[in-house]
Amino acid sequence: MRTYRYPQQNEWKEIIQRPHLDLSKLHATVTGVLNDIKEHGDEAVKKYEAQFDHVTLHSLAVSAQEMDEAEHLLDDKLKAAIILAHENIHAFHAAQKFEGKPIETRQGVTCWQKSVAIEKVGLYIPGGTAPLFSTVLMLATPAKIAGCSEIVLCTPPNSEGKVNPAILYAAQVAGVNRIFKAGGVQAIGAMAYGTESVPKVYKIFGPGNQYVMAAKQQVSLDEVAIDMPAGPSEVCVIADHQANATFVAADLLSQAEHGIDSQVLLITTSEEKLQEIQEEVNRQLQALPRKEMAAKALENSNYVLVSDLDEAMKLSNAYAPEHLILQVEDYEALAEKVINAGSVFLGKYACESAGDYASGTNHTLPTHGYATAYSGVNLDSYCRKVTFQHLTEQGIREIGRAVELMAEAEQLDAHRNAMTVRIKSLKA
Amino acid sequence: MRTYRYPQQNEWKEIIQRPHLDLSKLHATVTGVLNDIKEHGDEAVKKYEAQFDHVTLHSLAVSAQEMDEAEHLLDDKLKAAIILAHENIHAFHAAQKFEGKPIETRQGVTCWQKSVAIEKVGLYIPGGTAPLFSTVLMLATPAKIAGCSEIVLCTPPNSEGKVNPAILYAAQVAGVNRIFKAGGVQAIGAMAYGTESVPKVYKIFGPGNQYVMAAKQQVSLDEVAIDMPAGPSEVCVIADHQANATFVAADLLSQAEHGIDSQVLLITTSEEKLQEIQEEVNRQLQALPRKEMAAKALENSNYVLVSDLDEAMKLSNAYAPEHLILQVEDYEALAEKVINAGSVFLGKYACESAGDYASGTNHTLPTHGYATAYSGVNLDSYCRKVTFQHLTEQGIREIGRAVELMAEAEQLDAHRNAMTVRIKSLKA
Repeated sequence: MRTYRYPQQNEWKEIIQRPHLDLSKLHATVTGVLNDIKEHGDEAVKKYEAQFDHVTLHSLAVSAQEMDEAEHLLDDKLKAAIILAHENIHAFHAAQKFEGKPIETRQGVTCWQKSVAIEKVGLYIPGGTAPLFSTVLMLATPAKIAGCSEIVLCTPPNSEGKVNPAILYAAQVAGVNRIFKAGGVQAIGAMAYGTESVPKVYKIFGPGNQYVMAAKQQVSLDEVAIDMPAGPSEVCVIADHQANATFVAADLLSQAEHGIDSQVLLITTSEEKLQEIQEEVNRQLQALPRKEMAAKALENSNYVLVSDLDEAMKLSNAYAPEHLILQVEDYEALAEKVINAGSVFLGKYACESAGDYASGTNHTLPTHGYATAYSGVNLDSYCRKVTFQHLTEQGIREIGRAVELMAEAEQLDAHRNAMTVRIKSLKA
Repeated sequence: MRTYRYPQQNEWKEIIQRPHLDLSKLHATVTGVLNDIKEHGDEAVKKYEAQFDHVTLHSLAVSAQEMDEAEHLLDDKLKAAIILAHENIHAFHAAQKFEGKPIETRQGVTCWQKSVAIEKVGLYIPGGTAPLFSTVLMLATPAKIAGCSEIVLCTPPNSEGKVNPAILYAAQVAGVNRIFKAGGVQAIGAMAYGTESVPKVYKIFGPGNQYVMAAKQQVSLDEVAIDMPAGPSEVCVIADHQANATFVAADLLSQAEHGIDSQVLLITTSEEKLQEIQEEVNRQLQALPRKEMAAKALENSNYVLVSDLDEAMKLSNAYAPEHLILQVEDYEALAEKVINAGSVFLGKYACESAGDYASGTNHTLPTHGYATAYSGVNLDSYCRKVTFQHLTEQGIREIGRAVELMAEAEQLDAHRNAMTVRIKSLKA
């Protein structure tokens, strides 16, 4: 990690810089696979599963028997933890339900919004050594609350053709309808275009490697919505003189262990705390199994000493972190100044891993500076707000003439006429 | 228009088909212009303005003097209409303000959402013979309500270097901060990357031709959000035996006049009404100045006779129209069954042009079937929902162990450790 002491504002650009993410080189490969899936369906998915996941699949669908097996295989304590996390995620997202109220903008002109679930959504859960069952909860729980009628999940199987039981159990708890064994680009293609087994969906959610990201980008140009653009995970911690250095160091490392491209930014107002935290990071790092990866991620990361919390928050807003931890005495006042962040953690006990797993908030959040324009996944991500309007005769009297004038000025005569015929009908 | 009488469900695919929209051929041209803007800023914008809009610009910014002139040039009645429309749009979108309530998911674990405005937004308004000042109101009014601090608008000038006064007046009424003379791809590039004059924004809104759409697609892969993917405008009208054929025909034509690629779908349960509407369309068409264009659009369009309203709504949901007009007796019951639509108009007086201009709803809506997954522009489009959480010692006791177990099962030891150090601190 580089250390900046009282940087000038012209140094900020360097501090907040993220690794450039260029997926365009992957596009040719990805397009090839996507087109193959579009044309050959299940057969192509199976071909790529053999090629990339080294497995011969007869059926893509996970069977009811496999679901039962998973439940038996899983440790009871972990099941209880999954259920607790699900309850909290459910409580937080269920509270986001939207009830549109009719607004009478003029007498006889009534408009309202209604939240309607997206009918078919697809969730992608990556494979690899660590099964991301927490992401299953994060993506499926709000889909179920929203009322999506088809909730499809794709995840790569292991070389025996099995899906990790924790993923299957979490999917069952959260209400996934159908699970398919497919990973990478082929999974994204299957959900975007549909195959004999996998239904076509309208929106695809979930994390993945660069190929998955590139595939999501491509299908998003091809009539399928996606949750958000993706990038490496990141955290910014703002710490003052009273922060707990052990906690801060643990939070920085919990981010760094995600991958070598993860980014960590510490902003502190205390020189003393800066040194304490640096020492703690080095000490805790030694004990981590993923030590090498975390150390590599720390190389891209920065410690910054600033003169006050106001400057700290300005720098954080310029960075627009995915996760922002405020380990400061008056975190409430500082929280008011947050403009750009995905999710904010207040005080010394709100560690990022609380939100990653079990507090109830969603952990699918905008990275790479996208927090300037995107929200994390929430109940809205699974719904559309459809507008409705009703006009009475009086409504036509109130706004009819204005509509005619504006349509005329925009040279849209048929638009004007649609109002004119109604105005005339009133006079008759 | 083709007419289908009681089509089988396997004919639906043909009925709901949209013209294929392939922007990929434009990408090379568009990338060239975008890169030029990124590298050469204002100079490049001016070069393309000379090339495409045939105008030599000394300054891109619209001056305060030009704003004043616009106000004087504009007809008083049109100004009053714009103000009335703005008031209604303001009332409807201001009612969409979101207040997040804290949820205690477990004792001592409190989570909430806060809606925060996107700081910098860019609005694009196309040029051409008809000035789309109504779109200025639709895009700028909610931006102002949301509290976006920088609201930038780009629109191409005419060959004298002037912007249409109705656009300038609407921009002033709705609260746009800065207006620039730039059109097409160069305008999108200027707002996406920033130039000496035009500030870089985080999200770009607005309609445009295929080049503008392709440019928006491209910058959306390059760290700028966009409102939604675009396609030709469309309407579906469901009419029963009591519908007013004159009104229905006028609504169909108001959509058809948008452009030769516009699409119109009439679904009716009455053979008699079908014939009446067809006759009315032919009659009204003759009187339209944009007759040729509307006639061309009607060629891609369909009249469908179905056996009941339930089937009508199923077909409409399969089509997912941008605009859906329900000219049926019991429109309330039918409205309940809407799943896929951008904006819905109920009863005989709610014509599409009411919503296009002045009822208060937004007219920037998902086309091309995107209504399956996207909302129209609304107040949310200008905000992000940032999540916050706070935990007490008790909160750690409630969820700490579950977090540890889940992190362990995901093999993320530093995540577990961030919780473990906090649990240990309680015991001490």
